[in-house]
Amino acid sequence: MKKFVLAPDSFKESMTAKEVCVAMEKGIKKVFSDAEIIHVPMADGGEGTVESLVDATNGHKEYIEVQGPLPEQKVKAYYGILGDEKTAVIEMAQASGLMLVEPRYRNPLTTTTYGTGELIKAALDKGVSTVIIGIGGSATVDGGIGMAQALGVKFTDKYGNNIEPTGRGLTKIDKISTENMDKRIKNVNFIIASDVENTLTGKNGAAAVFGPQKGATQDEVELLDKGLSHYAEILRKDLDKDVEDIAGSGAAGGLGTGLIAFLDAKLQSGVEVVANTVNLAEKISNADYVFTGEGGMDFQTKYGKTPFGVAQVAKKYHKPVFAEAGYLGERIEDLYDIGISAIFGIVDKAESIEESLEKGPQNVERTTENITRLISSIID
Amino acid sequence: MKKFVLAPDSFKESMTAKEVCVAMEKGIKKVFSDAEIIHVPMADGGEGTVESLVDATNGHKEYIEVQGPLPEQKVKAYYGILGDEKTAVIEMAQASGLMLVEPRYRNPLTTTTYGTGELIKAALDKGVSTVIIGIGGSATVDGGIGMAQALGVKFTDKYGNNIEPTGRGLTKIDKISTENMDKRIKNVNFIIASDVENTLTGKNGAAAVFGPQKGATQDEVELLDKGLSHYAEILRKDLDKDVEDIAGSGAAGGLGTGLIAFLDAKLQSGVEVVANTVNLAEKISNADYVFTGEGGMDFQTKYGKTPFGVAQVAKKYHKPVFAEAGYLGERIEDLYDIGISAIFGIVDKAESIEESLEKGPQNVERTTENITRLISSIID
Repeated sequence: MKKFVLAPDSFKESMTAKEVCVAMEKGIKKVFSDAEIIHVPMADGGEGTVESLVDATNGHKEYIEVQGPLPEQKVKAYYGILGDEKTAVIEMAQASGLMLVEPRYRNPLTTTTYGTGELIKAALDKGVSTVIIGIGGSATVDGGIGMAQALGVKFTDKYGNNIEPTGRGLTKIDKISTENMDKRIKNVNFIIASDVENTLTGKNGAAAVFGPQKGATQDEVELLDKGLSHYAEILRKDLDKDVEDIAGSGAAGGLGTGLIAFLDAKLQSGVEVVANTVNLAEKISNADYVFTGEGGMDFQTKYGKTPFGVAQVAKKYHKPVFAEAGYLGERIEDLYDIGISAIFGIVDKAESIEESLEKGPQNVERTTENITRLISSIID
Repeated sequence: MKKFVLAPDSFKESMTAKEVCVAMEKGIKKVFSDAEIIHVPMADGGEGTVESLVDATNGHKEYIEVQGPLPEQKVKAYYGILGDEKTAVIEMAQASGLMLVEPRYRNPLTTTTYGTGELIKAALDKGVSTVIIGIGGSATVDGGIGMAQALGVKFTDKYGNNIEPTGRGLTKIDKISTENMDKRIKNVNFIIASDVENTLTGKNGAAAVFGPQKGATQDEVELLDKGLSHYAEILRKDLDKDVEDIAGSGAAGGLGTGLIAFLDAKLQSGVEVVANTVNLAEKISNADYVFTGEGGMDFQTKYGKTPFGVAQVAKKYHKPVFAEAGYLGERIEDLYDIGISAIFGIVDKAESIEESLEKGPQNVERTTENITRLISSIID
């Protein structure tokens, strides 16, 4: 009896990772009706991480209204409680994401991570011992002071007034106090699931690299960078935390810095965090064949995307890995070296993106069936 | 050392079968650099049959000006002389094809297969002993009387005048004489490469089934059918040939009938003729893996298309067959039963048909490489 591990990411705008697993299983079952098939919906810390980890561990989602990225904005967000009931998983973009802000209002001087702090607080209320935080897609460059404020950290200006928890507020910080910070934080492990290596300030910093795509002009980028430098200075002075030059401190507009400085969070590759959480290695070690995939794949897949992470694990156990994608981009040949055995496009004909997205499940099923037929024709 | 046989059809509007072979070889060589790779450009009797047979046998093409489908039309056509110098291959559509007639002039009452007869005559001039005739895509419903007239057969009306060699001429035939027919015909084997099973007349006949797509109105279809019946009657009377109910006698507007009655041609499945001519069975019997493919594949592929023919041969020798196509249509699952091991789309993303056609070679190369990588990952 053949054993298959199905470990795809979601196919964005077409299928969740779980739905991809279901389609793949249908394809395999048409060839090996008695195959043992393990579903491991995957993610890389980006969009879909909560969904996949909840699906992979039989956990559940919790919905809560929190502060959005803009001052007067409320958003309905969710976070995940995993099957072990001890681990929460959060996507910062649920509360503080760029997609929550209409393009014309995008401006990191006025946006905040406050809602992400509220999500963390809600997770703490559930009594978890680990919180995984995916931090892709932020609308903010507030250094994580919004998040910290929601958890009780006090940022005051030289007159002793609370400052606004936004990019604009950074330059006004005169003093930071963690005296009233949520006491439960000390007993919880915080893991940042991210592959961003940018530091907080400077040329490779949060403002310079990500500011423009969040709506900042060049002048505003400089203002934000100055604010982040000033903030880093106060962190050193008041809390003895020197975070500014840590790779990843600049992730999500400096939310990385806030999470490290106040929550003692550890940075870890997104797909590795997910793989560890779902015991991917153990599952793959017992498998004959591994399937993975993502909506789009190209040479950038090797920079920490799900098929890369899955291939790394499978390589260790010498298992073949077959990848599927709706979009095959530049230099996919780079991916053979990292452990992906073969890559197949799922599109069945030249057609519009809309048609192609809609047929995702049947295309994955057909492609998986044919990969499996090929295997069957070789091993028979 | 692994042995591969590459036996694809052309990918219409994108690549000849030979070009598909070249792209496939590149893909395989990236994985097995020392593989033995046999190119067998294939065809099924339709468009591309001359090209593929010439390429597969290291033959050459001969160009000649002949009568087109319309009365005053001259066309430059080609036929093939195969590597053995003893076999000629003709596509009737080169001289008498629907694509040679502008849509507004399409009318099988006025079109002729005379040019096809000229192509046959030219082949006879080369001293060949076998002529293979592909008969798809005709503009005509003349029962092959044009073809026969070009080879010296006399069709006269009741006043003894030569009749016009068109659909309209059929009803006027009073007498057929083969007295002055080209004497070399007797010593040559004629093979019709076709999977059309229609008979000459009636509901499943040449006029009723194919007349409308060649431009005939309903009245004209009836006129043509009456003419074909009359023609069949004279064939019985004057030549003692009863061809009317033979499956295939209605192929190419009844050209099948003319070829059978006057040239004693034998009907044979198109892809079988091609497979025999290129010794496909022998090549496949020594191979480890067989690749095939065609621009588009769907359930109709099983009705005599190239991947079907290749799969039939490979099945006999228990060899796996991997097929590639730019367009995967309805019910491709029907093709697993006929011996195709697995089928893969080559399109790399949702895009326009023009883009997709242009990237044919790189898409085939990439897909072939990945099929080969999959094989390699399983057998290693």
